Amino acid sequence: MSQSDRDTTMMMRALALAAQGCYTTTPNPNVGCVIAQGDEVVGEGFHIAPGGPHAEVHALKAAGARAQGATAYVTLEPCSHYGRTPPCCDALIAANVSRVVCAMQDPNPQVAGRGIARLQEAGIEVVVGVMAERANALNPGFIKRMQTKMPYVQLKLAGSLDGRTALANGHSKWITGEPARADVQAFRAQASAILSTSATVIADNPSLNIRDNQLPRAVLDHYPQSTRRQPTRVILDKHNQTVPEASVYQLEGNVIRIVDTPSNKAWPDNVQEWVMPDASLTTILRALAEHDIDKVWVEAGARLASQLLSESLVDELIVYQAPVLLGVDSRPLVALGGLESMDDAPRFHFNQVKTVGDDVRLRASLSEHAVITQEY
Amino acid sequence: MSQSDRDTTMMMRALALAAQGCYTTTPNPNVGCVIAQGDEVVGEGFHIAPGGPHAEVHALKAAGARAQGATAYVTLEPCSHYGRTPPCCDALIAANVSRVVCAMQDPNPQVAGRGIARLQEAGIEVVVGVMAERANALNPGFIKRMQTKMPYVQLKLAGSLDGRTALANGHSKWITGEPARADVQAFRAQASAILSTSATVIADNPSLNIRDNQLPRAVLDHYPQSTRRQPTRVILDKHNQTVPEASVYQLEGNVIRIVDTPSNKAWPDNVQEWVMPDASLTTILRALAEHDIDKVWVEAGARLASQLLSESLVDELIVYQAPVLLGVDSRPLVALGGLESMDDAPRFHFNQVKTVGDDVRLRASLSEHAVITQEY
Repeated sequence: MSQSDRDTTMMMRALALAAQGCYTTTPNPNVGCVIAQGDEVVGEGFHIAPGGPHAEVHALKAAGARAQGATAYVTLEPCSHYGRTPPCCDALIAANVSRVVCAMQDPNPQVAGRGIARLQEAGIEVVVGVMAERANALNPGFIKRMQTKMPYVQLKLAGSLDGRTALANGHSKWITGEPARADVQAFRAQASAILSTSATVIADNPSLNIRDNQLPRAVLDHYPQSTRRQPTRVILDKHNQTVPEASVYQLEGNVIRIVDTPSNKAWPDNVQEWVMPDASLTTILRALAEHDIDKVWVEAGARLASQLLSESLVDELIVYQAPVLLGVDSRPLVALGGLESMDDAPRFHFNQVKTVGDDVRLRASLSEHAVITQEY
Repeated sequence: MSQSDRDTTMMMRALALAAQGCYTTTPNPNVGCVIAQGDEVVGEGFHIAPGGPHAEVHALKAAGARAQGATAYVTLEPCSHYGRTPPCCDALIAANVSRVVCAMQDPNPQVAGRGIARLQEAGIEVVVGVMAERANALNPGFIKRMQTKMPYVQLKLAGSLDGRTALANGHSKWITGEPARADVQAFRAQASAILSTSATVIADNPSLNIRDNQLPRAVLDHYPQSTRRQPTRVILDKHNQTVPEASVYQLEGNVIRIVDTPSNKAWPDNVQEWVMPDASLTTILRALAEHDIDKVWVEAGARLASQLLSESLVDELIVYQAPVLLGVDSRPLVALGGLESMDDAPRFHFNQVKTVGDDVRLRASLSEHAVITQEY
């Protein structure tokens, strides 16, 4: 195998390892590492959860003495600073690897390139950019937060082929099927936070949590309950219209209520109240990012969807469509209105289309090049 | 190879051959034939156009003396009657084949099984039903016409992710892109007829024809202009509202105008007038089937789409969606209204989803098992 082919093959393996952390590493990125002597993998690992060892440490431990003179493949530039764990650069230098291949630089502009420089100063050959596009697709939330201090926003929509969510009389059970709902559970489980509104809480009393018996089997098989977590539920409740008894507040997991004025009700201990009078959606999302929330899964009604879309705050649409037609007097998928020109319409790029049970799922993002690496 | 594996492999080849006739055989079915001695193909062919030899004749000619003792694989039961060509059963018997494998019986209940019986009477072993599902998917129009005296109706819809076809002000160019429009050309070219309405003719002055410079390259490469044809254009013009100058009447190809009362205008020679006062859509479709039109591609507005859907006359939806959202005051994909229960909503099964350029194409039919064999 040529060195270039080998680099690609090993990095693919490191990317696949990294993706295994997709339910657990938040607010840290997914990172994978492979240590190889020529074509032979001598150690590998991935970052599992915050506070635990980084990918490089797992892989070096597995390689032991065979890391000496080896090439380390890492999906992200190794860190050079002391966080909750010592810098990975130091570990790679101490293990005497001779070459480090990174898929991409650290997306934090404050530290990008420092790890690479440190390795080079130690006499290690460093290659950057192998499979960079896929490495980027692995951590859209982390990368966006590091680069822009805003979270990556995924808007979930579900409806009929003609873009309707319910009949005029409100009937909607079930437009999409059980496999689509299980698929939604898997997306929720990968998010840092789930964003919804008082209107949705009042109308539907949703749980907006991860339910073990509804996750796809592939997730259950690979991720024991002990490693999973409940994403933070964020409820926009400007006018304090929801009540503590709503399911979304009563279930396990942190909740943030965003209000204009403090509530005088008694809330469960897991519910925080953020008083942000007249805050724009941008301000709210920025505040979430400041609290390390970087991948926001939006499940709400047509109104919030439209506000996010018209303020260009949506990075990705995940649209479930059932093979059914509901007609003109049925309820719309998004409440956008008043477009005068096709140029003003929110436009995305399809990144993936597939069937999920009897329904289809369309993923469309702002990036033409987004690659989806991990399904479940 | 086991006989069962061989039968499957050879029938797959016969099906692929058959599909090559998809632009040209109407009103005849697509049929392919492979003659094999054990694992060796000794002759093959497919039906190209009405009046020309059937698939079996092409294949037998290619096989010559090697047809003796061979197995003939045919995607449809060989005919036993004199039509424009002599019966294929006789040709197979005369060539001394020892075994005939058919994917399916003749769908015409009047003649189904006769060819098989004739072959068996001549001492030939006959197997029926190999790859039957795919063989069915090859000729949905022909089969439906033979079995029900109605055509197979494909309804084309194109719009935004939220089920809209144009802004409130009518702007719609272009929601879907050039590759989607080329894809539509390929579907038109496979249809027996294209159905539209006076409203569409008046609003858009469409051509509704096949344009060589807009067909996908794969079609142009495989089908020289001489082998292609213009599908019949059928315009529902109940109240004689269209004019002879409309493009749809002026271009090459037959046109049928369906009216309540005779027109007093002078129409080009290629335009027929069918006077069918107050005819229902069912009556009109049945009349088309009586005239050997069996695959109808519908390109019209939301109103005809809705009428066809609410009368359960649509066999398949072909939906092009652009990754754009147009909002609630935009024009709807279908004008269905007044649904009281989800059970009343027209429901289909997704058979295929794929991207076409920047857009997606969803195919959904009444059959869960439909298989799409030929793309272009």
